[in-house]
Amino acid sequence: MRKTIFFLLALSLIGNAQTTHFETTFASIYDASLSEGASYQWLDHLSNQIGGRLSGSLNAERAVQWGKEELEQLGLDRVWLQPVMVPKWVRGNFEYANIETSPGNTINVPVCALGGSIATPAAGIRAGVVEVHSLDALKTIGREAIQGKIVFFNRPMDAQSIRTFEAYSGAVDQRTKGAAEASKYGAVATIVRSMNLRLDDFPHTGSTKYDGIPLSQRIPAAAISTNGAELLSSMLKLNPELRFFLKQNCKNYPDVPSHNVIGEIKGSEKPEEIIVVGGHLDSWDLGDGSHDDGAGIVQSMEVLRLFKKLNLKPKRTLRVVLFMNEENGLRGGTKYATEAKRKKEKHYMALESDAGGFTPRGFSFDCTDKQFQALQQLFPILKPYQIREFTRGGSGADIGPLKDGKVLLAGLRPDSQRYFDYHHAANDTFDAVNKRELELGAAAMTSLIYLIDQIDLP
Amino acid sequence: MRKTIFFLLALSLIGNAQTTHFETTFASIYDASLSEGASYQWLDHLSNQIGGRLSGSLNAERAVQWGKEELEQLGLDRVWLQPVMVPKWVRGNFEYANIETSPGNTINVPVCALGGSIATPAAGIRAGVVEVHSLDALKTIGREAIQGKIVFFNRPMDAQSIRTFEAYSGAVDQRTKGAAEASKYGAVATIVRSMNLRLDDFPHTGSTKYDGIPLSQRIPAAAISTNGAELLSSMLKLNPELRFFLKQNCKNYPDVPSHNVIGEIKGSEKPEEIIVVGGHLDSWDLGDGSHDDGAGIVQSMEVLRLFKKLNLKPKRTLRVVLFMNEENGLRGGTKYATEAKRKKEKHYMALESDAGGFTPRGFSFDCTDKQFQALQQLFPILKPYQIREFTRGGSGADIGPLKDGKVLLAGLRPDSQRYFDYHHAANDTFDAVNKRELELGAAAMTSLIYLIDQIDLP
Repeated sequence: MRKTIFFLLALSLIGNAQTTHFETTFASIYDASLSEGASYQWLDHLSNQIGGRLSGSLNAERAVQWGKEELEQLGLDRVWLQPVMVPKWVRGNFEYANIETSPGNTINVPVCALGGSIATPAAGIRAGVVEVHSLDALKTIGREAIQGKIVFFNRPMDAQSIRTFEAYSGAVDQRTKGAAEASKYGAVATIVRSMNLRLDDFPHTGSTKYDGIPLSQRIPAAAISTNGAELLSSMLKLNPELRFFLKQNCKNYPDVPSHNVIGEIKGSEKPEEIIVVGGHLDSWDLGDGSHDDGAGIVQSMEVLRLFKKLNLKPKRTLRVVLFMNEENGLRGGTKYATEAKRKKEKHYMALESDAGGFTPRGFSFDCTDKQFQALQQLFPILKPYQIREFTRGGSGADIGPLKDGKVLLAGLRPDSQRYFDYHHAANDTFDAVNKRELELGAAAMTSLIYLIDQIDLP
Repeated sequence: MRKTIFFLLALSLIGNAQTTHFETTFASIYDASLSEGASYQWLDHLSNQIGGRLSGSLNAERAVQWGKEELEQLGLDRVWLQPVMVPKWVRGNFEYANIETSPGNTINVPVCALGGSIATPAAGIRAGVVEVHSLDALKTIGREAIQGKIVFFNRPMDAQSIRTFEAYSGAVDQRTKGAAEASKYGAVATIVRSMNLRLDDFPHTGSTKYDGIPLSQRIPAAAISTNGAELLSSMLKLNPELRFFLKQNCKNYPDVPSHNVIGEIKGSEKPEEIIVVGGHLDSWDLGDGSHDDGAGIVQSMEVLRLFKKLNLKPKRTLRVVLFMNEENGLRGGTKYATEAKRKKEKHYMALESDAGGFTPRGFSFDCTDKQFQALQQLFPILKPYQIREFTRGGSGADIGPLKDGKVLLAGLRPDSQRYFDYHHAANDTFDAVNKRELELGAAAMTSLIYLIDQIDLP
């Protein structure tokens, strides 16, 4: 308690001079990001010259090489690749579905295989459909009704959740666990309503997990577009006996080697303390992963570029990490944290951007009460930049494994209203990212890191 | 002073029970707007079935009829048209420009006539170009250098302004006053860099004003796209003697009759006090005016629809006004205020939405200190809806004439980062508006009005 009071007192004592210093520095950071930033051009290359980069793919390796080469041009103190083994799942060359309303009458619907799913038999699967709105419903309905059928999980994301990530959390169990659960009741496949708040024709992929289910008992899992889900549901009301046809030839392969890409600027006063900023370099394969998480990658790179460009000397060692395999394994994040522990590295702070390249509204912090108390004193300095939402809670998946009760974990929180229009879908492309919004995020991240590096958090 | 303290005390005394009531009501307002809102479908019709609706055009009259018919279906207590004379300016059937880098070698550049501009002679104008960055520069350069030339105003909006409306205010004098000023120095036409923060190929129109300049001395004014402006500027550096060709056949006509569209729900306790919510029904003619200000129109209509739908009884009379002619005359707003004064109507509050259909971030208030003090107590109730920016300042052009030192004027403040990508340009179309963001704005407006109606502002 005495320590906290001392800290707050110290902070308020140095307040005025430091505040002016921060204001000047933030202005130069925002000016540089908005007027001569590199983030948008980087994203153009990553999205349009490389494209979707699922772990284990050739594109993912091209992205690793590109990231390393770009960081090497920034004049950092060190750039290296950290080896990590990653899963390799390949979508295959077709995925196809239709609703057979009566024998011979079919309506095509947009579907995509869920990441990790097995293929259907080569001829596809044709079966009746059981529509449910929760995993629990399977138990209520029971094996007799489910056996031999395709289970259709159709609980929409809750449009009434103002925070769209909460709506996502509230629905995504259908995608991650649906196939595993349905297989226990004898289902032959699952179709999941896309994790998308609006009605459109894009199926949204994402991981499904079979967990302990033996290989022989796994069933194929696909996502259906929200319009397709609405259609299927209304058709089922007209004809509960309709049949659904699904055909996909995705495949799991053995793990392959890949890398996290890391670059750092040595700290001038406390080089042994590390600040990490990062996003994930891998993406799903349908679009080009511009929002998820190309945006976070180029914003994180921009943080270090701005430090160099503006000659800001971090007290602590500032490290950018382009994590591999967030989407279907988190191997990169796990490996980074394991290595950090093995080397007894001390991490002071980690900041992740993995919520899209939209206008930044704030940051979330996964930290101790004392740390948050201290941070609250700093928040007003960011107000002129319309950074006003400081919450406690999740930071980012890749930096999560660093959590040890001492390190400050933080996540950029951009406006989230459009995020799930694009998330894991073919329309997550470069044109969906606004240059200015992306650059504001990079500037906000740079400012926060500069601010927290300059002080000593409890 | 005693009165204020009493008010604050009263507010804090009734605080808890009322807070709970507001929380419940807001939840139902947001639920209804996001799950079964009418705003997006209305905007679809206004944008795609009617389209651009410049004052005095047939489309503007179709919009008036549509607005009246839609309001009549809401079961309001009264719907009427308020006559107002409006300017009529017609773009004509061509506008065309090129840079002649050397005799016979031309590069076409995208231009559009500024609203209110006169035509060029039928054969067009071909002349040398003087590039300037401010109105003041004309004086420095002087008549000799300007005489017979086209003045090219090329000061960009300041990308470093976080608030884009400030960047707009900082540059728009070139558009509104450029032609009038340049004509005083003998210029033959003006070309103005589009009011757009990004580099693209859309010319952005908007009003230019000749003010006291006699008809015979007026010169044509056009906007050039930001890419076109960059090109022209770089060409001028290579060849200061290049010539520019401009041809446009826009025309001003005598005023024509039009209308504000008004609908109201009678107040249950203080029907003589009026709350206005509105936007402007007219738009520029290049796009379909979805953001400017179709969004504000349908959001304002949605406020009254939600009051009816949820059976919320306003204490005061709640009036929606679809103002005519904000863009090039403000005749509708002026007429409404004049009529209100003539009828001795008492306006308690007016709220305008005219900053695009983007995610709402807050409200601005044009009010007394006492009113703002009182309002500050209420702001936390809107926090769960990510409405967190409450500023003092401008409200909206249409409601501005109501200002009398007593009425509370307010403006919805959505995220402004993308607004000037579309403002007054051909890409301000329905597809640029996100359904959910639009609906969140309508819900925020409804909640604010409900809140302020339930209390008694000083």
